[in-house]
Amino acid sequence: MDIKAEIDRRTQEIEKIIGSYLPKEEGYQKTIMEAMNYSILAGGKRLRPMLMQETYRLFGGKSRVIEPFMAAIVMIHTYSLVHDDLPAMDNDEYRRGKKTTHAVYGEAMGILAGDALLNYAYETAATAFEMEPENPAIGRAFIVLTRKAGIYGMVGGQTVDVESEGTHDMTREKLDFIYRLKTSALLESSMLIGAILAGATKNEQKLIEEIAGEVGLAFQIQDDILDVTSTMEVLGKPIGSDEKNHKFTYVTFEGLDKAKADVAEISERAIAHMNTLVVKNEFLTELLRYLISREK
Amino acid sequence: MDIKAEIDRRTQEIEKIIGSYLPKEEGYQKTIMEAMNYSILAGGKRLRPMLMQETYRLFGGKSRVIEPFMAAIVMIHTYSLVHDDLPAMDNDEYRRGKKTTHAVYGEAMGILAGDALLNYAYETAATAFEMEPENPAIGRAFIVLTRKAGIYGMVGGQTVDVESEGTHDMTREKLDFIYRLKTSALLESSMLIGAILAGATKNEQKLIEEIAGEVGLAFQIQDDILDVTSTMEVLGKPIGSDEKNHKFTYVTFEGLDKAKADVAEISERAIAHMNTLVVKNEFLTELLRYLISREK
Repeated sequence: MDIKAEIDRRTQEIEKIIGSYLPKEEGYQKTIMEAMNYSILAGGKRLRPMLMQETYRLFGGKSRVIEPFMAAIVMIHTYSLVHDDLPAMDNDEYRRGKKTTHAVYGEAMGILAGDALLNYAYETAATAFEMEPENPAIGRAFIVLTRKAGIYGMVGGQTVDVESEGTHDMTREKLDFIYRLKTSALLESSMLIGAILAGATKNEQKLIEEIAGEVGLAFQIQDDILDVTSTMEVLGKPIGSDEKNHKFTYVTFEGLDKAKADVAEISERAIAHMNTLVVKNEFLTELLRYLISREK
Repeated sequence: MDIKAEIDRRTQEIEKIIGSYLPKEEGYQKTIMEAMNYSILAGGKRLRPMLMQETYRLFGGKSRVIEPFMAAIVMIHTYSLVHDDLPAMDNDEYRRGKKTTHAVYGEAMGILAGDALLNYAYETAATAFEMEPENPAIGRAFIVLTRKAGIYGMVGGQTVDVESEGTHDMTREKLDFIYRLKTSALLESSMLIGAILAGATKNEQKLIEEIAGEVGLAFQIQDDILDVTSTMEVLGKPIGSDEKNHKFTYVTFEGLDKAKADVAEISERAIAHMNTLVVKNEFLTELLRYLISREK
């Protein structure tokens, strides 16, 4: 399987689905809608909705009820980036080579666009209730979607990360906590929602959540490694930024060799867990492998 | 009925319900939880959850499933105030005589606390699915909760308001639009969710939404009137702020006398609509009357 070509093909499919859930830019609120769509269309590989859709397929899901949730996870991820980039946060003017939302629309609109995206994520996911009003799995998916994005998930991780910046108050335990919440939580949300909506058993859901957590951790450690070993040409962003910002990373604590060995071990464990399932999705397994061992 | 005493009594009841849904301040994320609770406990009369609960009672609702939605509407309202107060927005250091959230916790935490509150609103409301997994009205209530808070509701109104500030680009039509979205939308959400969860008919839901819209409009016009006619002692905040900020209001467009006459007319219409219902809730009718004719 040419995994890169497959990912590209599916990214395009997903782009169409997301596009169909974006707000129409019209009426008095036109500007905020433009800012929302600008932020979302700034792109990315759409790995979260891809993981959601493939996990849904893995467990035999066939309905379009997954689509509003795919769009929602993109909106949640996007809002977190828009707010992360704000002057009072990371103060970034560019992301993926494009001007950040507040750099284009101003700071007030940057705040409101992030708020609007987060709210629109839930508004979009809620359309699933109209599609299948009697399907109780949608309520369960909603519980996961909201929880993994909140203070016990992504936002929780962000706040601890922000608070730790510029201090020496960091331990391996706290770093693991930040990675689990800031990076893994949305991956867990994506895969778990796919499993729940497809009707996976409780045990299968538990396993999927674990796999997603491992993938998230390996993904984040790989990120730390690349910040040390890659080049700006390959990565498309400045390397060495963690060291420059005196940021504690997995590499700081464990050293480069141990970090590399751990990524390999955690990924093998995730794939092994995947292989214990009765159901199979070859693309999903390859995708997980690719995610972890990526070079940018 | 001593309406003020009754409101106070119910506010205390509601305070207990809200308190039971606040996050415990513990773990690495302790600061964000403190900031969230600080923002919520800064107070107010809890009119939105009160309207929700009384509309629920009006239509014979008896379950505790309304409670997470009552807490949720408070969290949504609170997050909007926290972000409104930010330096890039209204830049307010005090609200209701207390330091604003960002003034206490810093700007980054102010942004994150608002995000966390909005997300926690939906996380809290989603616990209703655990209480009654087979109740399809919860999904319908969720659709209303999300929509009325978003770009077709509150956030939409805020953005148009922010964009119009300091410009001369205002019409009566646009002002009505802002009032309907910024002020009425959350009142409509509150009363409509009460009606939906109690099992009101489609026609009853439509009427309740209309009443809430009228109450919101009258409430906002009364606000504009008080900014001109009240004193700082009664209002507890500086008067004349609209004029000072060159803000277009209902009074600017229609004059004080017409504004007063319109409040009276809109309120009478709302009460008359209320009286066409077969079901009755005397307190709710009195509450609506009080809300509109208030002096602060």
